[in-house]
Amino acid sequence: MAPSTSSHASSSSSSPTSLSRTETLSLASLSAASLAILLNALRGDGEPLIASLALSLAAFSLCYAMIRWLGPTFIKAGFRGRDLGKVNGAELPECMGAVCAAVYLIAVIVFIPFPFYKDIVAATSGGGNRDVVVEMERYANQGGRFLHRFPHNKLASYLGAIISLQTIALLGIGDDLFDIRWRHKWWIPGIASIPLLVVYFVDFDVTSIVIPLPLQPLLGELFDLGPLYYAYMACVAMFCPQSINMLAGINGIEVSQCLVVSLLIAFNDCLYLFTPYPHPATDSHLFSLYLLLPWIGVSCALLCHNWYPARVFVGDTYCYFSGMVFAVVGILGHFSKTLGLLLVPQLFNFLYSTPQIFGLIPCPRHRLPKFNARTGLLEPSVTPWTPDRQPHPLVARALLLLHRMRLLRATTAVDPDKGTTIFVETTNLTLLNLWLVWRGPLKENRLAWEVTLLQLAVGLFGLFVRHKLALLVFKEDNWGSTGQH
Amino acid sequence: MAPSTSSHASSSSSSPTSLSRTETLSLASLSAASLAILLNALRGDGEPLIASLALSLAAFSLCYAMIRWLGPTFIKAGFRGRDLGKVNGAELPECMGAVCAAVYLIAVIVFIPFPFYKDIVAATSGGGNRDVVVEMERYANQGGRFLHRFPHNKLASYLGAIISLQTIALLGIGDDLFDIRWRHKWWIPGIASIPLLVVYFVDFDVTSIVIPLPLQPLLGELFDLGPLYYAYMACVAMFCPQSINMLAGINGIEVSQCLVVSLLIAFNDCLYLFTPYPHPATDSHLFSLYLLLPWIGVSCALLCHNWYPARVFVGDTYCYFSGMVFAVVGILGHFSKTLGLLLVPQLFNFLYSTPQIFGLIPCPRHRLPKFNARTGLLEPSVTPWTPDRQPHPLVARALLLLHRMRLLRATTAVDPDKGTTIFVETTNLTLLNLWLVWRGPLKENRLAWEVTLLQLAVGLFGLFVRHKLALLVFKEDNWGSTGQH
Repeated sequence: MAPSTSSHASSSSSSPTSLSRTETLSLASLSAASLAILLNALRGDGEPLIASLALSLAAFSLCYAMIRWLGPTFIKAGFRGRDLGKVNGAELPECMGAVCAAVYLIAVIVFIPFPFYKDIVAATSGGGNRDVVVEMERYANQGGRFLHRFPHNKLASYLGAIISLQTIALLGIGDDLFDIRWRHKWWIPGIASIPLLVVYFVDFDVTSIVIPLPLQPLLGELFDLGPLYYAYMACVAMFCPQSINMLAGINGIEVSQCLVVSLLIAFNDCLYLFTPYPHPATDSHLFSLYLLLPWIGVSCALLCHNWYPARVFVGDTYCYFSGMVFAVVGILGHFSKTLGLLLVPQLFNFLYSTPQIFGLIPCPRHRLPKFNARTGLLEPSVTPWTPDRQPHPLVARALLLLHRMRLLRATTAVDPDKGTTIFVETTNLTLLNLWLVWRGPLKENRLAWEVTLLQLAVGLFGLFVRHKLALLVFKEDNWGSTGQH
Repeated sequence: MAPSTSSHASSSSSSPTSLSRTETLSLASLSAASLAILLNALRGDGEPLIASLALSLAAFSLCYAMIRWLGPTFIKAGFRGRDLGKVNGAELPECMGAVCAAVYLIAVIVFIPFPFYKDIVAATSGGGNRDVVVEMERYANQGGRFLHRFPHNKLASYLGAIISLQTIALLGIGDDLFDIRWRHKWWIPGIASIPLLVVYFVDFDVTSIVIPLPLQPLLGELFDLGPLYYAYMACVAMFCPQSINMLAGINGIEVSQCLVVSLLIAFNDCLYLFTPYPHPATDSHLFSLYLLLPWIGVSCALLCHNWYPARVFVGDTYCYFSGMVFAVVGILGHFSKTLGLLLVPQLFNFLYSTPQIFGLIPCPRHRLPKFNARTGLLEPSVTPWTPDRQPHPLVARALLLLHRMRLLRATTAVDPDKGTTIFVETTNLTLLNLWLVWRGPLKENRLAWEVTLLQLAVGLFGLFVRHKLALLVFKEDNWGSTGQH
């Protein structure tokens, strides 16, 4: 573990705040290419998916450059922090997720006309209020033909999604600025989900769920959850951002997990693109792709700067925003259960953390793995116990059980006064610490790689379950094929 | 002008960061009343205007309390400034416009279902996808009857408006945080207008304007501006926020001018409510009211804290956001010309400032009126000239002309070396300084009052022109009556 030399020497050819010549050239050509594709798409009939891909490339370039340029500005404005996992960490710009969010929002706003391009041209042949034209068309064709109608409802859901994402960006920045207390933090994504739910209420208000086959004799094929469905959606919107925010603490892990989840959702969306159109679910999954691709773009840009050794930090804004992107596409794309399968590591981390969250076990301010400056490796961080302050007997029994199941590491000693076994320390209850308990001390980037691959493996298995095994309990997979049993 | 005693003594009964008992009681009862009205509106058929009023009252209460509570948090986060117009100004929280914006956004988002409540009930009698039901209804009625259809397009414009407002809030906070350079600032409202314009493009795309009667023989009754119309709207969106941001600098003036403009627009909207429904313009003006009333609510709350002697500052966020509210209602309500008549003082201030903006006359960092600590009055601030640095001869002639027209005050002297007349100082070119040139030194609150009343008088005259004199050049006032000539 050689102590790194000055930061200038370590950042190879480029100075820390300006782009190198290679970077400038690559980004410029990438932007030029995406602009060309966009203009070409406008001359054709919109081709929204191609346009979305091009915009995502442009978003990547812009985000990459802006993160580099804005570093000193962020540090000056007080968004800075030290890396706890380095020997002598310099001050790094914090809250760079805000840049990603801003670039992403520009991209999705500029994208608005593309999915509706065909409709705009078809409905008005150039100008004039859409509805007037449709009204006339309807009177002209009384034969019950399926008339072309502008998909206002899709536009409204897209706009509702943008509003929710902007709200979470505003609240996330507020959190990074004011350091909101943990208790209040919990509600931030809940507030941001309000616009989404309101638009859902006004525009769809479908609150029925499909009942699994074994339960259909009891509850019928569809069951109307009513207002509970909104509570369910709010919970999804609250869980995604918070759970991602909790699986954090080492360089790159926030971004890499989000990138894996985004790619898996996008992969799942693509499965639906190859079914014969118009499949009822195709549109929802297209919608999901339009929102995900730019996010993948800006996340890649951030990962380049945030991967070990990190030159910027992401801030709570990134985690909140990313979770909200998933929640929005899951809710409006009607695949929140599939989303749950992709977030299993986060769910596990959340459930595993509950004893510390609810105060059964003391919860230190930071639970991230501890950096051992001597070995240069990360080790599980621990909660120390003193002879005076021991866990409740029930908790103690649970801790010992977990220790025996290798779900945490507890160090015990014999109390010299009473002769009973007492706890000296237990590892903090996070997935990262648990992984270190299992695998032994690891280098920071190695740990990030392994947990990212874990996320990928669990997610792929989840998708397999979703499409292959779901037919055992549901009548049909909405992806084309019908179950035979 | 007695120097004020300690701040605790001066803020009467309440401590500076908590509400007094009277305040708590009033705000609580106000909130309770508005909640009761809201719930009652939900049991009836929505009554959106009543609901909007109730929400605005609730927004006032929430904003009033939050501005008080969040003061220390803002100061701690670095949002603070000293009052340049006081003897020994304490540090006050800055950027409180962000609180207004946040509360306002919550109010307009929660309000979304109300204007569509009747449609929700009519279209679906409770649940199910709106469009499915409408589709069925259409097939059932082939006779060309006017069918009930969910007003998706109105929803989309409302959502587009919210997105633009959130964008300006994000950018305004960015400006207050990072102190963006003047040159870049100019583009902030332009970027924020993109969502509005995109939604307008996708959803309406009406780009024709009515031609005044004298020009109709040349250009026809309607003239299609095409893409120029979008440039025009972008200019409106850029002008409103910037011009309000420029007429600033003394306690309360930013908020009071915005309040006057909001009230005048709301008054103009109300004129349309009493025309026999359904008048084509009624819906646009209702839309405008829905967006304005909550803004009036939060602005009143801010004014209570920002009026002389100010206990908080508003920040650029407030001016940008307020200007954007006006631009949004003006553009989507199709009355941007009327809006222009209400912003004449801002337009004058902007044009009057141009020589300093474009560098013909040196522009100091602050051009706000100068506080004379001896008299306790505000005096016009000046640009000093040295014998070495005199204005260009043409500028000098213009300055002397303006001086003779009493449109600025120039102090001249005779150069002892050359015997020519040279400038010693000229007043800065802002409306506030000009008013002080005309009226002599004034107390800060007096100046704010007078300029606010000026805004009111000019605005009322503008509305008179709009509704009475416009018939001379346009065939009809869209407010009911048709011109006879």
